[in-house]
Amino acid sequence: MNGHYKKDAWSIIEEGLDPSMQEASESIFSLGNGHMGQRANFEEKYSGETLQGNYLAGVYYPDKTKVGWWKNGYPEYFAKVLNAPNWIGIDVEINEQQLDLHKCELKDFRRELNMRQGTLDRTFTVIIQGKKLDIAVRRFLSMRRDEIGAIRYSIKSSDFSGRISFTPYIEGNVLNRDSNYGEQFWEMEGTGAKQGSGYLMARTRKSRFISCMTMGYEMQLNQETLDSEAEVTERHDYVANRVTVEIGRGDEVLFYKYVSVLTSMNHDQPDMVQRGKQMLQNAQEAGFDALFEEHTKVWENSWAHSDIVIEGDTAAQQAIRFNIFQLNQTYTGKDERLNIGPKGFTGEKYGGSTYWDTEAYMIPFYLSTATDEVARNLLIYRYKHLEKAIENGKKLGFTGGAALYPMVTMNGEECHNEWEITFEEIHRNGAIAFAIYNYIRYTGSQNYLAKYGLEVLIGISRFWRQRVNWSDVKGKYVILGVTGPNEYENNVNNNWYTNKVASWTLEYTLKALDQVMESDPEAYNEINNRTGFDFKKETTAWKDILDNFYFPYNENTGVFIQQDGYMDKEQVMAADLDPSQRPINQHWSWDRILRSCFIKQADVLQGIYLFEDEYEMDTIKRNFDFYEPRTVHESSLSPCVHSILASRIGLHDKAYEMYLRTSRLDLDDYNNEVSEGLHITSMGGTWMSVVYGFGGMKIRNGLLSFDPRLPERWKGLSFKILYRGRTLKIIIDKETVTIENLEGEGLELYLMGEKAILDQNGSTVANM
Amino acid sequence: MNGHYKKDAWSIIEEGLDPSMQEASESIFSLGNGHMGQRANFEEKYSGETLQGNYLAGVYYPDKTKVGWWKNGYPEYFAKVLNAPNWIGIDVEINEQQLDLHKCELKDFRRELNMRQGTLDRTFTVIIQGKKLDIAVRRFLSMRRDEIGAIRYSIKSSDFSGRISFTPYIEGNVLNRDSNYGEQFWEMEGTGAKQGSGYLMARTRKSRFISCMTMGYEMQLNQETLDSEAEVTERHDYVANRVTVEIGRGDEVLFYKYVSVLTSMNHDQPDMVQRGKQMLQNAQEAGFDALFEEHTKVWENSWAHSDIVIEGDTAAQQAIRFNIFQLNQTYTGKDERLNIGPKGFTGEKYGGSTYWDTEAYMIPFYLSTATDEVARNLLIYRYKHLEKAIENGKKLGFTGGAALYPMVTMNGEECHNEWEITFEEIHRNGAIAFAIYNYIRYTGSQNYLAKYGLEVLIGISRFWRQRVNWSDVKGKYVILGVTGPNEYENNVNNNWYTNKVASWTLEYTLKALDQVMESDPEAYNEINNRTGFDFKKETTAWKDILDNFYFPYNENTGVFIQQDGYMDKEQVMAADLDPSQRPINQHWSWDRILRSCFIKQADVLQGIYLFEDEYEMDTIKRNFDFYEPRTVHESSLSPCVHSILASRIGLHDKAYEMYLRTSRLDLDDYNNEVSEGLHITSMGGTWMSVVYGFGGMKIRNGLLSFDPRLPERWKGLSFKILYRGRTLKIIIDKETVTIENLEGEGLELYLMGEKAILDQNGSTVANM
Repeated sequence: MNGHYKKDAWSIIEEGLDPSMQEASESIFSLGNGHMGQRANFEEKYSGETLQGNYLAGVYYPDKTKVGWWKNGYPEYFAKVLNAPNWIGIDVEINEQQLDLHKCELKDFRRELNMRQGTLDRTFTVIIQGKKLDIAVRRFLSMRRDEIGAIRYSIKSSDFSGRISFTPYIEGNVLNRDSNYGEQFWEMEGTGAKQGSGYLMARTRKSRFISCMTMGYEMQLNQETLDSEAEVTERHDYVANRVTVEIGRGDEVLFYKYVSVLTSMNHDQPDMVQRGKQMLQNAQEAGFDALFEEHTKVWENSWAHSDIVIEGDTAAQQAIRFNIFQLNQTYTGKDERLNIGPKGFTGEKYGGSTYWDTEAYMIPFYLSTATDEVARNLLIYRYKHLEKAIENGKKLGFTGGAALYPMVTMNGEECHNEWEITFEEIHRNGAIAFAIYNYIRYTGSQNYLAKYGLEVLIGISRFWRQRVNWSDVKGKYVILGVTGPNEYENNVNNNWYTNKVASWTLEYTLKALDQVMESDPEAYNEINNRTGFDFKKETTAWKDILDNFYFPYNENTGVFIQQDGYMDKEQVMAADLDPSQRPINQHWSWDRILRSCFIKQADVLQGIYLFEDEYEMDTIKRNFDFYEPRTVHESSLSPCVHSILASRIGLHDKAYEMYLRTSRLDLDDYNNEVSEGLHITSMGGTWMSVVYGFGGMKIRNGLLSFDPRLPERWKGLSFKILYRGRTLKIIIDKETVTIENLEGEGLELYLMGEKAILDQNGSTVANM
Repeated sequence: MNGHYKKDAWSIIEEGLDPSMQEASESIFSLGNGHMGQRANFEEKYSGETLQGNYLAGVYYPDKTKVGWWKNGYPEYFAKVLNAPNWIGIDVEINEQQLDLHKCELKDFRRELNMRQGTLDRTFTVIIQGKKLDIAVRRFLSMRRDEIGAIRYSIKSSDFSGRISFTPYIEGNVLNRDSNYGEQFWEMEGTGAKQGSGYLMARTRKSRFISCMTMGYEMQLNQETLDSEAEVTERHDYVANRVTVEIGRGDEVLFYKYVSVLTSMNHDQPDMVQRGKQMLQNAQEAGFDALFEEHTKVWENSWAHSDIVIEGDTAAQQAIRFNIFQLNQTYTGKDERLNIGPKGFTGEKYGGSTYWDTEAYMIPFYLSTATDEVARNLLIYRYKHLEKAIENGKKLGFTGGAALYPMVTMNGEECHNEWEITFEEIHRNGAIAFAIYNYIRYTGSQNYLAKYGLEVLIGISRFWRQRVNWSDVKGKYVILGVTGPNEYENNVNNNWYTNKVASWTLEYTLKALDQVMESDPEAYNEINNRTGFDFKKETTAWKDILDNFYFPYNENTGVFIQQDGYMDKEQVMAADLDPSQRPINQHWSWDRILRSCFIKQADVLQGIYLFEDEYEMDTIKRNFDFYEPRTVHESSLSPCVHSILASRIGLHDKAYEMYLRTSRLDLDDYNNEVSEGLHITSMGGTWMSVVYGFGGMKIRNGLLSFDPRLPERWKGLSFKILYRGRTLKIIIDKETVTIENLEGEGLELYLMGEKAILDQNGSTVANM
């Protein structure tokens, strides 16, 4: 698929409509604004293959768990991302012939996602009854008014004269592709339609979320507003207006559709119809151009903070912006109840919303590109779910306040049901602990630990204590029966990464206890009471575990071993795989994957990445050299970590290769699945591969530190970060690295290994 | 539940109707005749909790596989045992009040399963409108005419006078309890009803099996046949006749219902209605008493071969007969297309029909109690599925004719979809190979190997060769990623049992090749051509594997280790478990079960049982002493093997305890699940625990051998076996064991370790 989309610094551009690429492009050109989002489905009818997708933040369906053999502890339901009623629809008829790009004669089809301003544009020419019409459609979801969407549909006659009808509608009869037997998840609550407008209110089954969508429109002929009589349709699951205009050669008809999209996440039902109408009216009065301008201003502001500029490599530049754009349109950090699903607003897959992806891959991005509150809200999201994590632990047989956070969740409850994941992929608990540390390390927060963090750490450490057991034969504590980050191994013993995050959590919790006891004894006492913490008994047990923790290690190779028994596998390198067999998860049976040595995503290397400072460069190299060739990167979360580590150990070509793989994963469809949606959460990893990898940023002895290394083919790299009230700009070229302090007090930092002082409004330069 | 059913040598008796026990009793009192079978649902309406179940041999539904995360290699469907149209129904009204045992006043309810004659009887008194009626219902599924069922429903008035109506019907609107969203699996093909009869023809969705059920009836008042006018109902999914009679005090009304049940397994659709009517007519002309008599004669004959008599222990006697009765009514061996499902005709669970249970637990029973053909048909069933087993192997990535038999199947295709079972529980392949050896060892068959067996062995050995891999660190061949018989461990490495059956298969295949090459070179050449067998290359590879196979063994304890890493677990004994936590599979989460050392069913011990002759008594003892205390016996297939081994090593109390557990598993509901159906396949294991365990029977150096040991509380044990054309009777009492040769030539055998000659019609006695 490489090369399907044009390379451009600020846009994704597709030229020509290829039906076999339609679902992929629907993913690539997705729009969102934090509150809602949607795949790039067409406004008008499209009879080719399409995956309809229109999603509302926080709105999900609890599908009943059905498995061959019920296993105790399974959640009763798993959450589904729901395809919501369709509000973008505008049927277009040209002399009573329905416009359908799958069927009509089409020329010069072009689609552009303008990332700078957050718009989706389509332009194309259709030949209908031998006559040409030029069509241009623009759509955006307002970043300023996040419950508003707007569409401008322009039809310009070249040599056509005749009737054009527009039928803007809202359709409640929508399906999920992954539903059983075409089951519907929405029940209609009410509709209303009259000349000029219509609304549709619907409620999800079981979860009882309500959505209310209200539409209005305006039609202009050669920029004169028309007041046409509409044919009004109102059914229980559909509202529409049909308006018609006669046009002649050279005429242009402009049709504007405005929609307000409210949900019960933010409004009470009794008010929703009225509120929806009011919001729509306000938007409509402002008009398309004003809405567009205020929308693009938000994007402008957002780019001012978060843009990364790469010079001399358009593919790399386009890719990083695509990643940042998707992150910023998926999650804005305004609502602490929300989180980031692996596919964001771009597909149905991975039903639930929140995975460990958030802590491991998203927090770093938001820490450096948004105000403290955004990352803090993501952390507090987990703090608020602590009770449910303890309940979840109880369901699996853990006691005494041991918290096991869910693998996938919408509301704090586990909502995934494959035993090897749900019950065994417990390293997620470590990522949640690490995020607390990472947040405090970066922000220098004085109160987060006492206020929120420590309690979560205690819950997680209690879990680890119960989850280890003593092995007589090893004379060590072991962790049996887990799935590590590399999900191509299930139910293994002593996954090195899991053992590492577990022991690290215990250590950090011990330190955190000391710290809070000293800095805020009152808060400590409160936490102590609330959690029934038995300091002596519990910390003694933790220390004993720490003193006797087992970590698989191979003396011959000097590498940490992914899990017990890994070395019994046939050791084959990914490069030796028959290319027709890749990705192996689309060609091999599961047992074959499990038996192979191939690694889906960074596992031991994930641990080395997280705890890099603990390891000598030689150790990092040995482990990288051992594991990289065995890794097939069939998880989106893999190449970014490999890219960062490759940068660290000076494997710059590898770092660049992995950077392209992470940043262009979706644009070049490495894993042959972009039609299902984008890999939103891995995009945080892409950002890390630039800033942590090539930018060489880290926190070292409490100070910010940069050791950048520019890929060979890049002329320059620059990005900004927010750091403890400052805005810093990092400018890297072939010879030098410059740090400018754009805003905020001076600070001390490391630059190319040396301490440097950066004054207020000052800058500092070092040679590379 | 112990004690709910009365202990009786020939019957299962329940006194009093306990609604909370109804579903359990529906399982216990099930009837079958090889062609069809059913749970003990009531003929008349019952509004309490009930699990309707009426099953037709070989008729199944291919339900679509639905899983959270699709894994390559999963079959497209999994087979469901289907609840078929209900033909037993007779609605009864007494003065227009519907008889419903859940609601009416009821006295002296008694239910009896008479195992000697294969009938289900219910007697009870109801008080309706203050008057008493005594009701007696008898039902049987004819063993002589396996498409015929008959019911006699007697109502005798004590002080009642008034109207009695009977409405015999056939109902097509039936559900499976395990269906999704109340989905129906039968489509109606046609019905017809008239005075005196009715039929209903239905077809299963997707699998397109057809069933045609035809009913007739007769009503007598005080033994005079009545010719009442019937109210006839014919709907697309229901046919019925309603007849009414006036009775007075002391009168008895007898209502007979006859049904023929045909399926497309045995009849072509165009003939089915006509054939069904004809069969019904023949049965009806013979009449209930004659049908009953011919039916009981078949049972009499069956018991003459297969009965086991235990003196001095009614509970044990009742239990073994219950097991034998169920086996004989589930599978008669007449139809080589059929096999034995784990729940037989008694419940929906374990959708598919055929598991490794057949080879490991059923073949021995049929070998010794039925003609050679029955066991041979079960073996040929697998021979006929060889092509599909090779296809199944291909789906999982194996090549060159490697056969992996399915874990669960209806027609040779895999129809189960849990990766840890479907892909990994590969030891089933070993059981299929062993059954060939076992059959030949017992029957002395001269031609089975050349005609059928060798080809299957080659396919299975080819699979093992590809399924092992070389471990550099062990310097041995290993088998990674398997689930052994103990399904409380998933995806483990080097399960000792699996490695053992794999290596044994290779060894036996090498021997079998030599044997066939020598005895039947022509057959060998044919097989060679058909399979493309490369003798030198393939046998060399097998021998290399055999020379370097890894078997986990613990030097300290001197036991074979269940799998790599088993000794890392916390070693707790089952006896130390909190009884409220048992069975653990109903109380513990799956991950906790997996991490524990608890064993669901014999695993290492299963291997020691199969290959007993290879091990010294000390080795058997050490392994038994190690594994037995860790085994929770939560599979029905477990206690029988433990009982047999306990007998071998002289742990007679343990052998007896395990015998009761296997034989009374359902009657005493050890695992709290009998309501779902009976454990039919484990009943073969019960038989083994008596004949192989207490009877001490085995084949030793090609000769039959007996070393019996009577449990303390038994006065005597006797059973018959068929062996190479002979019928032998084994009579064991406290002091002696006697073998009588009832039929067939003389033979040499071992008795209490000494060779003995048993003449034609002779007998031999030894002291115990």
